[in-house]
Amino acid sequence: MKTACESPAILCVTIVLALAAFAAEPAAQPRARLRELGITIGTLPTGRWNAITDVAGVRVSHVTLIQGEGKLVPGQGPIRTGVTVVLPRQDVWQNKVPAASFVLNGNGEMTGLEWIEESGYLETPIALTNTLNVGRVYDGVITYMLKRYPEIGVTDVTINPVVAECDDSDLNDIRGRHVTDAATVEALENAASGPVREGAVGAGTGMIAFGFKGGIGTSSRVISKSDGAYTVGVLVNANMESREQLTIKGVPIGRELAPPLTGLAGGTPRASDGSIIIIAATDAPLSARQLKRLARRVPLGLARTGALSRHSSGDIILCFSTGNTIPHQPKGQTSSLLELADTRLNVLFQAVEEATEEAVLNALTTAPTMVGRDGNVAEGLPLEKTKEILRRYNQLR
Amino acid sequence: MKTACESPAILCVTIVLALAAFAAEPAAQPRARLRELGITIGTLPTGRWNAITDVAGVRVSHVTLIQGEGKLVPGQGPIRTGVTVVLPRQDVWQNKVPAASFVLNGNGEMTGLEWIEESGYLETPIALTNTLNVGRVYDGVITYMLKRYPEIGVTDVTINPVVAECDDSDLNDIRGRHVTDAATVEALENAASGPVREGAVGAGTGMIAFGFKGGIGTSSRVISKSDGAYTVGVLVNANMESREQLTIKGVPIGRELAPPLTGLAGGTPRASDGSIIIIAATDAPLSARQLKRLARRVPLGLARTGALSRHSSGDIILCFSTGNTIPHQPKGQTSSLLELADTRLNVLFQAVEEATEEAVLNALTTAPTMVGRDGNVAEGLPLEKTKEILRRYNQLR
Amino acid sequence: MKTACESPAILCVTIVLALAAFAAEPAAQPRARLRELGITIGTLPTGRWNAITDVAGVRVSHVTLIQGEGKLVPGQGPIRTGVTVVLPRQDVWQNKVPAASFVLNGNGEMTGLEWIEESGYLETPIALTNTLNVGRVYDGVITYMLKRYPEIGVTDVTINPVVAECDDSDLNDIRGRHVTDAATVEALENAASGPVREGAVGAGTGMIAFGFKGGIGTSSRVISKSDGAYTVGVLVNANMESREQLTIKGVPIGRELAPPLTGLAGGTPRASDGSIIIIAATDAPLSARQLKRLARRVPLGLARTGALSRHSSGDIILCFSTGNTIPHQPKGQTSSLLELADTRLNVLFQAVEEATEEAVLNALTTAPTMVGRDGNVAEGLPLEKTKEILRRYNQLR
Amino acid sequence: MKTACESPAILCVTIVLALAAFAAEPAAQPRARLRELGITIGTLPTGRWNAITDVAGVRVSHVTLIQGEGKLVPGQGPIRTGVTVVLPRQDVWQNKVPAASFVLNGNGEMTGLEWIEESGYLETPIALTNTLNVGRVYDGVITYMLKRYPEIGVTDVTINPVVAECDDSDLNDIRGRHVTDAATVEALENAASGPVREGAVGAGTGMIAFGFKGGIGTSSRVISKSDGAYTVGVLVNANMESREQLTIKGVPIGRELAPPLTGLAGGTPRASDGSIIIIAATDAPLSARQLKRLARRVPLGLARTGALSRHSSGDIILCFSTGNTIPHQPKGQTSSLLELADTRLNVLFQAVEEATEEAVLNALTTAPTMVGRDGNVAEGLPLEKTKEILRRYNQLR
Repeated sequence: MKTACESPAILCVTIVLALAAFAAEPAAQPRARLRELGITIGTLPTGRWNAITDVAGVRVSHVTLIQGEGKLVPGQGPIRTGVTVVLPRQDVWQNKVPAASFVLNGNGEMTGLEWIEESGYLETPIALTNTLNVGRVYDGVITYMLKRYPEIGVTDVTINPVVAECDDSDLNDIRGRHVTDAATVEALENAASGPVREGAVGAGTGMIAFGFKGGIGTSSRVISKSDGAYTVGVLVNANMESREQLTIKGVPIGRELAPPLTGLAGGTPRASDGSIIIIAATDAPLSARQLKRLARRVPLGLARTGALSRHSSGDIILCFSTGNTIPHQPKGQTSSLLELADTRLNVLFQAVEEATEEAVLNALTTAPTMVGRDGNVAEGLPLEKTKEILRRYNQLR
Repeated sequence: MKTACESPAILCVTIVLALAAFAAEPAAQPRARLRELGITIGTLPTGRWNAITDVAGVRVSHVTLIQGEGKLVPGQGPIRTGVTVVLPRQDVWQNKVPAASFVLNGNGEMTGLEWIEESGYLETPIALTNTLNVGRVYDGVITYMLKRYPEIGVTDVTINPVVAECDDSDLNDIRGRHVTDAATVEALENAASGPVREGAVGAGTGMIAFGFKGGIGTSSRVISKSDGAYTVGVLVNANMESREQLTIKGVPIGRELAPPLTGLAGGTPRASDGSIIIIAATDAPLSARQLKRLARRVPLGLARTGALSRHSSGDIILCFSTGNTIPHQPKGQTSSLLELADTRLNVLFQAVEEATEEAVLNALTTAPTMVGRDGNVAEGLPLEKTKEILRRYNQLR
Repeated sequence: MKTACESPAILCVTIVLALAAFAAEPAAQPRARLRELGITIGTLPTGRWNAITDVAGVRVSHVTLIQGEGKLVPGQGPIRTGVTVVLPRQDVWQNKVPAASFVLNGNGEMTGLEWIEESGYLETPIALTNTLNVGRVYDGVITYMLKRYPEIGVTDVTINPVVAECDDSDLNDIRGRHVTDAATVEALENAASGPVREGAVGAGTGMIAFGFKGGIGTSSRVISKSDGAYTVGVLVNANMESREQLTIKGVPIGRELAPPLTGLAGGTPRASDGSIIIIAATDAPLSARQLKRLARRVPLGLARTGALSRHSSGDIILCFSTGNTIPHQPKGQTSSLLELADTRLNVLFQAVEEATEEAVLNALTTAPTMVGRDGNVAEGLPLEKTKEILRRYNQLR
Repeated sequence: MKTACESPAILCVTIVLALAAFAAEPAAQPRARLRELGITIGTLPTGRWNAITDVAGVRVSHVTLIQGEGKLVPGQGPIRTGVTVVLPRQDVWQNKVPAASFVLNGNGEMTGLEWIEESGYLETPIALTNTLNVGRVYDGVITYMLKRYPEIGVTDVTINPVVAECDDSDLNDIRGRHVTDAATVEALENAASGPVREGAVGAGTGMIAFGFKGGIGTSSRVISKSDGAYTVGVLVNANMESREQLTIKGVPIGRELAPPLTGLAGGTPRASDGSIIIIAATDAPLSARQLKRLARRVPLGLARTGALSRHSSGDIILCFSTGNTIPHQPKGQTSSLLELADTRLNVLFQAVEEATEEAVLNALTTAPTMVGRDGNVAEGLPLEKTKEILRRYNQLR
């Protein structure tokens, strides 16, 4: 089984099985995005898809691996994991985007940050996966890049990809490192604009947030024309916090829902508090300095979901702007970087905070209950009860 | 008048006048701390005074300067300013405290941070004042230290005090730099434990937050015995954000209260968005590394008041721990630093986030309407209306 | 005496006396700049004055305070101190310059860094002085700015000046805080382009470096036309390290000169290892991100003088570029920032490293022997012996 | 060929071939460590092996891959690469070491730094390899850890290994990613104390420094008994800078040796300036805060070799201390961290600067001429000529 999973030849089957498994998820529990439930966050309008892909050119893709059930046989399964990729623009290697990171809590990994910090730009795709799979997914991104750019490492410089992780070991056989080179390349090659699947997909497949099933969430905001009509999009992989912290619009949903805390079951106590990776994109013309300012606001949106940023959570944020292009080969001695006036950043701060808050909540409302290794259960957030509680607090009409 | 204010001889009179003026504040608008209004934040219990002084040994004092009214005559008045000091322990020069800072938004000043970052400790009092007064208050702290420690600069090393500022120019003749050396020394000499005056006192005298009268606020949390029975206390000088952002327990108080936005009046548009300085203390035995982790959580509490951390706000955080002592003269080749297990920090994170949120709100609920230069009015947060709105959202019983 | 020194009325006399005293420095010990001794550093050519003022628009000025001798009477003298100012361009408030700092060792103070870090620009003059004088000089810079800009704090925003310090207490009555508001304003008003006085002048008056008399030093480099013909200028206030570390062109001058180590005498052991403040300017069009890269190279030049960056040294670096202008009032929604291609930075790195190394050595070769408080003697670096040693190592022809 | 290299079954053969190839290196060019040439750096004594392994418990190992010659066939060869591992102590997972990093120039990758920064400790081995091999080596470290710790990812938390890279594409078929999982595990399992092989070994196999053959270098310093008898050891992978910068003891060796610059030949211009990874270890009881101070001094030693820290160089430093132990499972609510008095750090700063400088030079003097892909030649530093030049400058007796 392990051999199968690590053999490229069988991998497609694995994925097909996985998708089939995913399609077969309990129909009994319908899921919805936050706004479909009538719940809105903040005051700014969303983009067309209310997704990071509302920033023109940004593409996303998932490969979801779901296979097996029952007792954990390390290296063999059950498998509840995957990879999610975010591509900033069509050819980010030749046309780099300004970027900056902020580490709210460093109990995690996002590779590539030294170079982003130094250069002020991002030049590779971003890949999210599980913790022990970082090496293989990193290698997969390199495989993809080497294929596209035959001159890398020959006459051109080399690359330092961005791979970030969360720990899905409560549901997934994480020791199996089931996300292969081929799965990573597949995700990268299929990246597309448009609506983004959320919840238990891609890197989010095995995630748990606020004691409920978590995973991928996304949201966006559009600024008024007078402020430039810019878009800000956020994508998260939410895998953090305990149930009693969950807060929606100031309402203590987590505490109201309990008891009973029927979340993770199966007798295996959670080893860590998990993590959250947050990617924010904008088409506003920002420099790396300004994107760092944006990145430092992301935790303010996260905070409004009740998150404490716990000790063992890797809370790592990466922001990029498609509103500037840094060519791979500088064309002259100097180049111009567009900067939105700093005095006009406030509405972008608001946008990224609102979109972050909503993206986290979208992960919760879209992810269905998932049974993983050793019968561990991550319960989907009960949507009807949540709405009922919000109504009691006059936060849902 | 300006001469008077700068002459030490007349200063005491100024202060007396100021205190008299303060005592005579409109009785028509009773003020209260948040909990006196029945509003609680979070789930952890407060300390005895619900103040930073609940951390044993921490002392606070204000000198409040209120004098004159009407049209601004730069350098002469009207005066609405002051200085607030926080002393970490009895003799912090000889018995330094581990400390760390975090700058959420650096549009402001807190001096002394390079040395705190390098040494991992704080060895001077902390003073808060208005922006243009930093030099004089800095010099005042030095005057106080030189008097207490005659060997400084002779046989002992020199000092880099910690002075932080917010801009009170909407109400105060900030160009007058009315906080003198003597006022600073007076504040330092009068620092005391016990309840802390809040609102329009000391450095908070001329502050405006969320479009309402802001200023000094404080709060504390006590951890359970099984977690070590530690205390976390926070003191803020709140001078930031616009009205529509104000949020209490997730309820959009700022938007519900408006229109009419009757806040700042008098025809002078606000030049900047102001700032917030946040000081957090704990008796938990933390190292500088751990205090930096604590400091990075403070914005999460701030976020829950609706703050965006606007462009022109200096949002600067300083945390210290009285649970370790670093002697001025090391006694041996090595020394021991106590560290609470990092896995036990979560409840301290929760404590500092809750206390920060409540300290900001305390500043608003305790600060009365203030009329400043050019007749500019900073309206006190209307408490009854606020309670009424919270009741509508089932957040006040 | 102390009263006199603190009274503006007598201050001018003090300064006149000081300048007179300075003029009367022992003629017996001729001083020279490093290149006048035949010693060159690196391979790039210098600018016209081999000074920070070679960067067009940069102006420098010193006020030097030398008064009294003999036994220290704290607060009264002897006085060996001053203030040195660097003005990036004619009206840096209206036309800000990109800037960035790097703290190699934070045992010191440079105010204003939070705002520089956040905004990416410098908008005030830079002032250097002694440690305990930071408050007064800070206030002096504000006095100067308020006078020039009557709208500051009324209809315009406020300011956070940049004031940095080194400890001159081995020679100077540092407790006296003898650099007044008026002296600071005088320095700022007299700032000029052209050659820069070095050694025991301004903030450098009481400094000791490598156990010899230190103080102000400056140097510059000019890049070739094909690389853009840019200039890099450096100014240091050197007050750090012990004698055995002093190295010139790899030659262990400090160790070769000793014994006897006849440096600081007078029975007062040095309380601290002192500090070095380093200001680097360039007209190359750099962003704050790139200036931070430049700032991180400055220690590499410093290292070649043998400096270890000792524990109690405040080694703080500030770099700015006059090749970009950030207007006080943004003119449109966006603006363009010029960036030299990062691939072209290497020669600027070389320039700043060479100029830093030479500026430190210029401080040593220009500063004459100074007798300070309690008869403490800081010996000027013996130039003939130094040349002789360099000849032995084939490093001087 | 590529298949072979990627198949674990053939890998041992590959390595055997590689070692054989290495053993067959041109006997015509004897190599030596710097001190064997009579050249000493600094004034502190070295440890027994003058290597990072002088810090008790530190173990090092290399796997060197040398195979094929002639024209580059991407993915197939020629191969000139490898992996070098540094293990801080016997069981660093259970007994973590305080650690801190400093990024002088971030044009490179060292994974794992977010967690080191947050936790203040290192809990995994360190692996160095080529740029495109980071993913596979990362995965190899995980393979090794999973084997040793069956509870990781099941009942225990997961890991974020430390893998750092330099670009060896001038000599090596870097696209082939020839360092496999198995090679990494082999390196980790063979790590040993004692003398460390230097030059063209392990990760250093394909490196070029100062235009000469570079690679692995190491050195150590021992502090006097009165200062604690502590050891500081440094290991570098040197792959940076251009020939004209090379400086030994202040002597411009690079410029004296040229012309002719006969270094890299074969018609392929160098795509990047390369990088340097620097690992420093000490048994002095330091905290993460103090190790960061140590890390910031490492560039000062590097600077004395003439290094500019060029734009495209990843100059990344990691320091750790075996003088403290942080248990995997905290034993109580609090623990004690030993800190050497900060006032006693100066001699450690000197030690790490001297050892860094010497480690870089050891890489140059031990690495023999290497012919790589496309006939590219990295010439070994000519030792006799170097000595001759140093003699002319009286720096070698």
